[in-house]
Amino acid sequence: MKIVTTVFQLKQEISQHQAGDKTIGFVPTMGFLHEGHLKLLAQARAENEIVVLSIFVNPLQFGPNEDFDSYPRNLEKDKELARLAKVDLIFAPSAEEMYQGEPSYTVRVHDRINVLCGKTRVGHFDGVATVLTKLFHLVQPTSAYFGMKDAQQVAVVHGLVEQFHFPLKIVPVDTIREEDGLAKSSRNVYLTSSERSQAPAIYKGLLIGKELVLQGERTKQKIVDEVSSYIMQHTSGKIDYVEVLSYPELINHEVISGKLIIAVALKFTKVRLIDNITIDI
Amino acid sequence: MKIVTTVFQLKQEISQHQAGDKTIGFVPTMGFLHEGHLKLLAQARAENEIVVLSIFVNPLQFGPNEDFDSYPRNLEKDKELARLAKVDLIFAPSAEEMYQGEPSYTVRVHDRINVLCGKTRVGHFDGVATVLTKLFHLVQPTSAYFGMKDAQQVAVVHGLVEQFHFPLKIVPVDTIREEDGLAKSSRNVYLTSSERSQAPAIYKGLLIGKELVLQGERTKQKIVDEVSSYIMQHTSGKIDYVEVLSYPELINHEVISGKLIIAVALKFTKVRLIDNITIDI
Repeated sequence: MKIVTTVFQLKQEISQHQAGDKTIGFVPTMGFLHEGHLKLLAQARAENEIVVLSIFVNPLQFGPNEDFDSYPRNLEKDKELARLAKVDLIFAPSAEEMYQGEPSYTVRVHDRINVLCGKTRVGHFDGVATVLTKLFHLVQPTSAYFGMKDAQQVAVVHGLVEQFHFPLKIVPVDTIREEDGLAKSSRNVYLTSSERSQAPAIYKGLLIGKELVLQGERTKQKIVDEVSSYIMQHTSGKIDYVEVLSYPELINHEVISGKLIIAVALKFTKVRLIDNITIDI
Repeated sequence: MKIVTTVFQLKQEISQHQAGDKTIGFVPTMGFLHEGHLKLLAQARAENEIVVLSIFVNPLQFGPNEDFDSYPRNLEKDKELARLAKVDLIFAPSAEEMYQGEPSYTVRVHDRINVLCGKTRVGHFDGVATVLTKLFHLVQPTSAYFGMKDAQQVAVVHGLVEQFHFPLKIVPVDTIREEDGLAKSSRNVYLTSSERSQAPAIYKGLLIGKELVLQGERTKQKIVDEVSSYIMQHTSGKIDYVEVLSYPELINHEVISGKLIIAVALKFTKVRLIDNITIDI
């Protein structure tokens, strides 16, 4: 496994792999790898000759009041996990290496952003789209892997690749769950023990919503109400949102049809958890 | 020579050329080809195995009061000229094919735009950068060719490719001139005969500026003044701007150094002409 920190080195490595006409699977991350990332890496490993992992806490996707400085970092641990996951190449640049000051060119995302978590994270997806544009050009992957835990990000990246015609494939990877259904997240450790025992109700609520849809319910509000009331009854958390939207367009229709997403954000004492489920009807 | 109008067809053609590992020279244009374009095509032809020409009047780079609707179009003539220039593939999509309505993702250019013609063309270079991002991904050229007549566009595209790490080379091509030095332009026909005889003074003014720099002048304002006064004395046109900037950064320094551009825009009765010269000191 090779580790590079500069654009120059990365380009050299990638051009070697391209000369050999190798398929490249790319997993872009902000590091502090957990099981979700490992699942992405495993799928990239299974489907490609070369696996590239990027580790970059991207300042451009953090708002002024967000936790850029305190975002957890542990490059040594990440390297160890990447080695076990049989990653071929890690790209771990500094912010200076990626941006040299204020960026002169950015990507602006106009759709799919004023819903779900995007509502309260102005500019977040511009930052995501900008850094991915750079990374996609540098790594030139055959396929790039993203976790469905952040379904809105997957939707935005899908749109980016489709609209800008990036010559690569986006592969969405299912959320990993604990045995009781709770979506795995590094943030779960911030739950109190009583909250931890309530938290699986988020996923159960989503499953109830899915069941309603599969039984023929097409009125958005009814699904939102059922999911919300189940979660409110079974947890002490405060609902930030329960939304039912088309997927991946993320449009709010009163009467649903086609592929859709049910998504929840729930605030506990110290931590806000998100989860979602997609359904193709 | 093949002509395609859809993204789907273009992708098929490009993937065939890529399978053969061919070098691709790309000349993006808005059509209505003139000698400037033919020079770009000739250089692309000389340096690449495959030459791709795009013809697309990009609505996104026209302001609300600009001439999108009346912009000249003549696809039949363009095809004829392209055939003579030994173009392999023309991509001539509709606006609908390129954008399907309002674009959901755009590129925003933050630097190099508030000078020269960019000052009065708000959003113009965002439109240029957005369409080029799409075209570069679709055509995947080895090199893309741009005329130095629009030096600001070349500077913006250079920055775009550098900052976003597009895996391709930008090749600037020198402005073609009439024997008397006037930069060739389809707009020259709108000059009155007296204006036509004065117009070479634009280039002569630029050469006077260059000579000053080569003789050691480093104060920007002196160069601007000399160039302006020469042009004012020798033409009836009205100076829109005479600027001396670093190139390709397009920064306005009082004392010049390194590579620079002297650029002029001059308004005649019915037409505004632009020209420029770059100097490496």
